[in-house]
Amino acid sequence: MTSQATRILSRASAKRPANTTSASPAKKQRWVYAFGDLPLVIRRVGSWDAVKGLLGGKGANLAEMTRLSLPVPPGFVLTTEACNAFLKNGSQFPDGMWEEALRSLKHLEKKTGLRLGDPQRPLLVSCRSGAKFSMPGMMDTVLDIGLDDAVADGLVRSTGDERFVFDAYRRLVQMYGSVVLGIQSERFEALLQGARVRSGVASDSDLPASELRGLVRSFKDEVFRVTKKPFPEAAIDQLRGAVMAVFSSWNGKRAIDYRNASGIPHDLGTAVNIVKMVYGNLGERSGTGVATTRNVTDGEDEPEGDFLMRAQGEDVVSGTRRTRPIAELREEMPRIHAQLVRHMKRLEKHYRDVQDVEFTIENGELWMLQTRDAKRTARAAVRIAVDLADARRITRPEAVARVTPEHIETFLHPQLEEKSKRAAIDKGLLLAKGLNVSPGAAIGRIAFDADTAERMSKAGADPVVLVRAETRPDDVHGMLASAGTVTTRGGRTSHAALVARQFGKPAVVGCQDLVIDAEHKRMQTASGRVLCEGDWLSLDGSTGEVFAGKLATFVPDVQDPYLTKLLSWADAIRRLEVWANADYGRDAQRAREFGAQGIGLCRTEHMFFETDRLPVVQRLILAKTDGERREALDKLLPMQRADFAKLFEVMNGLPVTIRLLDPPLHEFLPDRDTLAAEVTDLRARLRLHDGDPAQVQATLHDKEGMLQSVDALREQNPMLGRRGVRLGIHMPELVRMQVRAIVEAACEAVRKKQRVSPKVMIPLTAISTELEMERAVLEDEARLVMEELGIRVKVQFGTMIEVPRAALVADRIARHAEFFSFGTNDLTQTTFGISRDDAETGFLVEYLQKGILKTNPFATLDVSGVGSLMRICVDRGRATREGLHIGICGEHGGDPKSIAFCHEIGLDYVSCSPFRVPVARLAAAHAAMGGKVDQR
Amino acid sequence: MTSQATRILSRASAKRPANTTSASPAKKQRWVYAFGDLPLVIRRVGSWDAVKGLLGGKGANLAEMTRLSLPVPPGFVLTTEACNAFLKNGSQFPDGMWEEALRSLKHLEKKTGLRLGDPQRPLLVSCRSGAKFSMPGMMDTVLDIGLDDAVADGLVRSTGDERFVFDAYRRLVQMYGSVVLGIQSERFEALLQGARVRSGVASDSDLPASELRGLVRSFKDEVFRVTKKPFPEAAIDQLRGAVMAVFSSWNGKRAIDYRNASGIPHDLGTAVNIVKMVYGNLGERSGTGVATTRNVTDGEDEPEGDFLMRAQGEDVVSGTRRTRPIAELREEMPRIHAQLVRHMKRLEKHYRDVQDVEFTIENGELWMLQTRDAKRTARAAVRIAVDLADARRITRPEAVARVTPEHIETFLHPQLEEKSKRAAIDKGLLLAKGLNVSPGAAIGRIAFDADTAERMSKAGADPVVLVRAETRPDDVHGMLASAGTVTTRGGRTSHAALVARQFGKPAVVGCQDLVIDAEHKRMQTASGRVLCEGDWLSLDGSTGEVFAGKLATFVPDVQDPYLTKLLSWADAIRRLEVWANADYGRDAQRAREFGAQGIGLCRTEHMFFETDRLPVVQRLILAKTDGERREALDKLLPMQRADFAKLFEVMNGLPVTIRLLDPPLHEFLPDRDTLAAEVTDLRARLRLHDGDPAQVQATLHDKEGMLQSVDALREQNPMLGRRGVRLGIHMPELVRMQVRAIVEAACEAVRKKQRVSPKVMIPLTAISTELEMERAVLEDEARLVMEELGIRVKVQFGTMIEVPRAALVADRIARHAEFFSFGTNDLTQTTFGISRDDAETGFLVEYLQKGILKTNPFATLDVSGVGSLMRICVDRGRATREGLHIGICGEHGGDPKSIAFCHEIGLDYVSCSPFRVPVARLAAAHAAMGGKVDQR
Repeated sequence: MTSQATRILSRASAKRPANTTSASPAKKQRWVYAFGDLPLVIRRVGSWDAVKGLLGGKGANLAEMTRLSLPVPPGFVLTTEACNAFLKNGSQFPDGMWEEALRSLKHLEKKTGLRLGDPQRPLLVSCRSGAKFSMPGMMDTVLDIGLDDAVADGLVRSTGDERFVFDAYRRLVQMYGSVVLGIQSERFEALLQGARVRSGVASDSDLPASELRGLVRSFKDEVFRVTKKPFPEAAIDQLRGAVMAVFSSWNGKRAIDYRNASGIPHDLGTAVNIVKMVYGNLGERSGTGVATTRNVTDGEDEPEGDFLMRAQGEDVVSGTRRTRPIAELREEMPRIHAQLVRHMKRLEKHYRDVQDVEFTIENGELWMLQTRDAKRTARAAVRIAVDLADARRITRPEAVARVTPEHIETFLHPQLEEKSKRAAIDKGLLLAKGLNVSPGAAIGRIAFDADTAERMSKAGADPVVLVRAETRPDDVHGMLASAGTVTTRGGRTSHAALVARQFGKPAVVGCQDLVIDAEHKRMQTASGRVLCEGDWLSLDGSTGEVFAGKLATFVPDVQDPYLTKLLSWADAIRRLEVWANADYGRDAQRAREFGAQGIGLCRTEHMFFETDRLPVVQRLILAKTDGERREALDKLLPMQRADFAKLFEVMNGLPVTIRLLDPPLHEFLPDRDTLAAEVTDLRARLRLHDGDPAQVQATLHDKEGMLQSVDALREQNPMLGRRGVRLGIHMPELVRMQVRAIVEAACEAVRKKQRVSPKVMIPLTAISTELEMERAVLEDEARLVMEELGIRVKVQFGTMIEVPRAALVADRIARHAEFFSFGTNDLTQTTFGISRDDAETGFLVEYLQKGILKTNPFATLDVSGVGSLMRICVDRGRATREGLHIGICGEHGGDPKSIAFCHEIGLDYVSCSPFRVPVARLAAAHAAMGGKVDQR
Repeated sequence: MTSQATRILSRASAKRPANTTSASPAKKQRWVYAFGDLPLVIRRVGSWDAVKGLLGGKGANLAEMTRLSLPVPPGFVLTTEACNAFLKNGSQFPDGMWEEALRSLKHLEKKTGLRLGDPQRPLLVSCRSGAKFSMPGMMDTVLDIGLDDAVADGLVRSTGDERFVFDAYRRLVQMYGSVVLGIQSERFEALLQGARVRSGVASDSDLPASELRGLVRSFKDEVFRVTKKPFPEAAIDQLRGAVMAVFSSWNGKRAIDYRNASGIPHDLGTAVNIVKMVYGNLGERSGTGVATTRNVTDGEDEPEGDFLMRAQGEDVVSGTRRTRPIAELREEMPRIHAQLVRHMKRLEKHYRDVQDVEFTIENGELWMLQTRDAKRTARAAVRIAVDLADARRITRPEAVARVTPEHIETFLHPQLEEKSKRAAIDKGLLLAKGLNVSPGAAIGRIAFDADTAERMSKAGADPVVLVRAETRPDDVHGMLASAGTVTTRGGRTSHAALVARQFGKPAVVGCQDLVIDAEHKRMQTASGRVLCEGDWLSLDGSTGEVFAGKLATFVPDVQDPYLTKLLSWADAIRRLEVWANADYGRDAQRAREFGAQGIGLCRTEHMFFETDRLPVVQRLILAKTDGERREALDKLLPMQRADFAKLFEVMNGLPVTIRLLDPPLHEFLPDRDTLAAEVTDLRARLRLHDGDPAQVQATLHDKEGMLQSVDALREQNPMLGRRGVRLGIHMPELVRMQVRAIVEAACEAVRKKQRVSPKVMIPLTAISTELEMERAVLEDEARLVMEELGIRVKVQFGTMIEVPRAALVADRIARHAEFFSFGTNDLTQTTFGISRDDAETGFLVEYLQKGILKTNPFATLDVSGVGSLMRICVDRGRATREGLHIGICGEHGGDPKSIAFCHEIGLDYVSCSPFRVPVARLAAAHAAMGGKVDQR
């Protein structure tokens, strides 16, 4: 649904509260509409969205197809208002509703020339639920209403097909019995099973007519046994019971759970569609099928679908019979095929989107039973949107709006190949279907506990998939060591789901069909298949499917021409620029390929960690004299200069924002705990005379020295310690060296006639004087270099805003900053007072599970807290410096909801990892089109 | 100066910018006023404060005394405007100024019947600086102007006192030479020294007339030798030169440094006072002295002072001659004594404050040379303010305004006894005078380095005083181990000063007269005295004095009746309530004695650390089963209940705010590094077969288990980890137990007919749902207890605001909180993104030294950052819940500037440590009287 539709809906429902049914009795309320009444309904409620609200999606579409003169079986709809009134009135139909329904039935009988319960020309109808939003399988349906013994006999006479008639009759009794009368369906299944055994057949469709006739009888006996009442023979009673059951099923547990999970409001109610039955299993020239107007896997403009002759709808979707591709219908029934294709084209054009239709051929006559917007893969979604816009069926902004950030994301994750999946399904390798909680494909060998997963991952060349009943905080290391995770319990906010999403690992949770035997390191599927530790498993985190074996995967092409086109349209719409976080030339290259318009964050510390540099960095940190320090810096200078030169070259005049060294120095030294253990061990060895004392003593001396240095830099809370600008103020030589490297590289580029736009970014400013002092030192160094080289380059100096105080005193800080960049990772940590390192595997997960937080604030910006600070910062900063250039370079810069907020508060750009640049380009366009950010 | 005076001044200076001297030439500017012109001046400038601005403090007071018909030597003033114009004009007198001065001189001559330079009846004058604010010794003075050879001879004839005349004459040449002509004073000192040697005398005052006559000659020769010009014999030239020199001394280095240190603006300028000389050394019936109108040590209403017969002013203050108490003047010269006492009473009444006067008796005639508000000890300040108010000389609010928070603070620190100090001074034990950077007295044995200080402190029973040239970050442990610190270098923002203030340790820095020989562990004073490591030293951080030996100290009585009275007046003025932070009954008792109106913070964790409880707490944390946990909680419950019962009893119905457990759990477990070392060592022993393997193995097993538990709770940044409300949500049983203890204790109190007002405070809330959930659990427990006991108690639930997000979403948090309390320690940490543990001995000191921060934000609230959040919080919180009760319980609650800010933003109370309650009561009254908070 487009966001516009959502808004119309919310307006509409605001105007019509749930209790409209208790409106003034003076005004005549209408509860029932025939499919042909659509113009009337539209006049009454105004919008298509409101029509769907009143008639439900299915009813509205059937009415719409009727209006388009497509061959739809006639019928009528009991409105959602009727449902709500029914539920409100203690399961009593509202005044006048049933009378209206009977009048509509009369019209239906007149139109069809048939009569409900008439053995000569019986009218059979279905009674189906249909809510505003599709809730497949969540509510009830009763088919074949109108059959009783007399009608059945009459039908046998007129169709000559006893098997057909009694199959329909036993279905009616079975469905009515379970849906309306609440009899356990297992009871009917048992009887069916008995009949199959007696007849020696495997499938119900092979049961002979006599057996079916007997089943009707025994089903009816079962009904009497359980309910102490006979099965209602009067067709009108059947109809009445079915309607009540469907209304009531709106508040069934399954439906409520589904709505909770999908965010569908509980006060919408369901409509009920009463439709004349048509049968695809009535003779040779009957059949049924489903089709989409285009290929929904790759988006090609070619109808696609499956059909079966002599079959009912459920035979096609259940997979019990082998379906035939829709193209074969052309040979089988060319006229019908042509009709179908014409209707489909008509529907696609009418609805301006690819349609998914159901049809039935009854005795050589085509009936359209349903149409709806087709589900599609991400690739298809992109191509279809582009093709429709190119064909001027929709506008380019509409095309952009129809593709979601999640669609773009699938272009970034490996996916299971569609063909490989189908083959696996055919071979029965689909083990289970769980909840698709973290997208992407993962393939690996099974491990049943975290330690094993970690060990296997470290040891072997093969990836691992962790399979657990559920995960707990002490499983996190195993999840991180694995390619993906599968659990048998838990939902969308389970620990496994949250942690997997957090770390971008594919996961499927809640696979209830799998039973794990952890002790024996194996699991069993519903069908009895057993898999052991080390066996291959494939999972699709985007669909929730879990397969045995090693399926083929592919990484969709981000350079896909349709995607490229769509993103170029998005670029034309968005106001926010999209920059990338890139530390090396190769990252920058990729970022440009993905459409980045600048580098918003180059983290210079990553360069310091490289193996050839770390020893020099350590010498720098441990230097006892100015000379030693100078020597180390002189070694680092050319390395840094080369790094920056490469970035400037790749970005070719686009802005390159380089952040000066940020982390606390101890991060560059050996791990303290390891060192301390070594020292203690060496002391014990010396004491206990183990090894050559002189040698042990010498090693001990070295290690003790290093430990002392590490301890001197140790901090209780390094996140809040001497880092960022504090480090620069403490060790001005270090940041001077960095600025020298930047400016030398930039001057060199200018000498080579390249364009450059360097921006020096000072991290962690909290105090305006801090920035003032640091900037003075850095500008001085920049000036020195330019004087030495005789070349002038424009270098901008700005700061990150990553502690609350910086946002609060932004007016003062802006005096000394030419740009701001929000470091929302740290800003989130300090605003909440939480350490991400500790929290994301700890209490944050607990908080998400308990619903204290709705989303992880490190994934999606906390609008009310952190966002409030950002607003203050933008206002105050621009009050001092009009038009101050402001961006964001935290991970939120690649998150669609966060991007929408950045747009809303007037940032100039978002900067994210290169891979997320396409997602950000689309999200920025959506934001510009007016997407609203959810408020928690 | 009262804050009101400050405001008038700032208004006045805002109206009259520094360049008013360049006003339109049409308007006649007047540069010179006689003392008698005061009514004219007041008419012109309007206020007494403006008069002092124009004439300087000294000039204004001399004029005022003249107006009161007190015997003041006649004279006139060159205004500060004249000085500023002079300095602005490149050291040229402004147009007309000198002519005005000459006219005033004529009047003076006429009035005295004397003439400048007239050998028969010579007029001698002094030329003294006098700025608006006292800057003692910072600017220049020339005395005895008007002497030349002819005048000297004439004076010898008329006075018959050759010694007197030539002593004055040589002083003139000496002062004029050094002050006006810039000749090094050492040159004159050398000549004086020669004369003393020749005459065989120790003191200049014993030099015979002939020697003085010779000195005048050799001084003049020296002047000619250096300046190539003769000493100006014309008296008018002497006067002109002296005026120019005094004007210029406003911009001397000493004066500028002093103004920077004292916060005196640089554009005020100094006035120059030209006053007829009177001599206290002219014959037997002459003398001079200083006196205060009351005792300024204890405040008793009895004049106090010292005088000398046959002496000049400097003889009294220099200490070279033994002075006599003022009471003896009554016997010596009863009429003069009576006059003096009358004048002093008159002045005190007139100025409405205790005065400090200088007087001279010339030939039996009393002259008043100066009056000003007397400096006084804290004790005296309080008593004097109370006595004046009781005598209706000032109002009670004025009395309150005259006592500063620093005065009250001295009641809290031990002080050196005044008598003991005087005795030490008499014995020559005053070693040096440095800067008084951190108040209070410290007495201890000398250590010259931090490690020794720490070792001595740990080893011996005696306290230690650390003496260093200067301190650095690696001296901090030594400072903390010592009772006080002395340094020979550094100023008010030196490392030693900052760290000492931070930790409330007395310190004196910049004792330039001490020379440390660290190698030989000794130091030498200016007088050559040597002190070694281990010798006793006494220092007074309030005055900057350092003494050899062990002086007597006393702790002033906070229950002093005058203080009690003054604070009761403050109570009547203030709007803010003052509560105390108290964990135990004894703290609460003290808090009440000091006037606390409630407990704003009881930290329950302190109770958990007690030796008998810690093992139970550890069992709780390490519990593997619910049963074990329950058992530990059941043990803790009665202990906590008893704690709270005691608090309720002491507070007798006043609010008692109890904060639920706050620190991360690992703080209650053994130190991780120690444990890890033990484990490593045990492993080495096992490997190297040291000791009984079974026993080593068993110990290792235990230690490993404990290490594992500690590691499981270990956090990268514990400040931002699982603590506060997060802990409560994670371990609801724990906080339920605490609430049960609170409510049981409260119910028990009610049963005993005591009044109780318990407030449960939830720490570290960042998210409204967090508080909502926690409160529901706690209220449930409270309800349970009340139902069990059948007693109802009103229990309030509120939260601390200590992370920025809490302030930002205060509107939502207020839905679930009945009160807020700012935890500004943590709020400062998270707002700045600094860890106090790491920063206060690290980069924060660096920042204060470099001037990046003006004050330590943990001592005084950071108004622009943290304060901005507090404002937001108060506004948003009260938007949801009108009149929401809000307080502060961080250390800032006891800091006067922070209290003023809390008043300004409308908090209801401040809560501080019991000892600071009196300070807070006064500061809250000052705030209510309109003190403004400095804005950084």
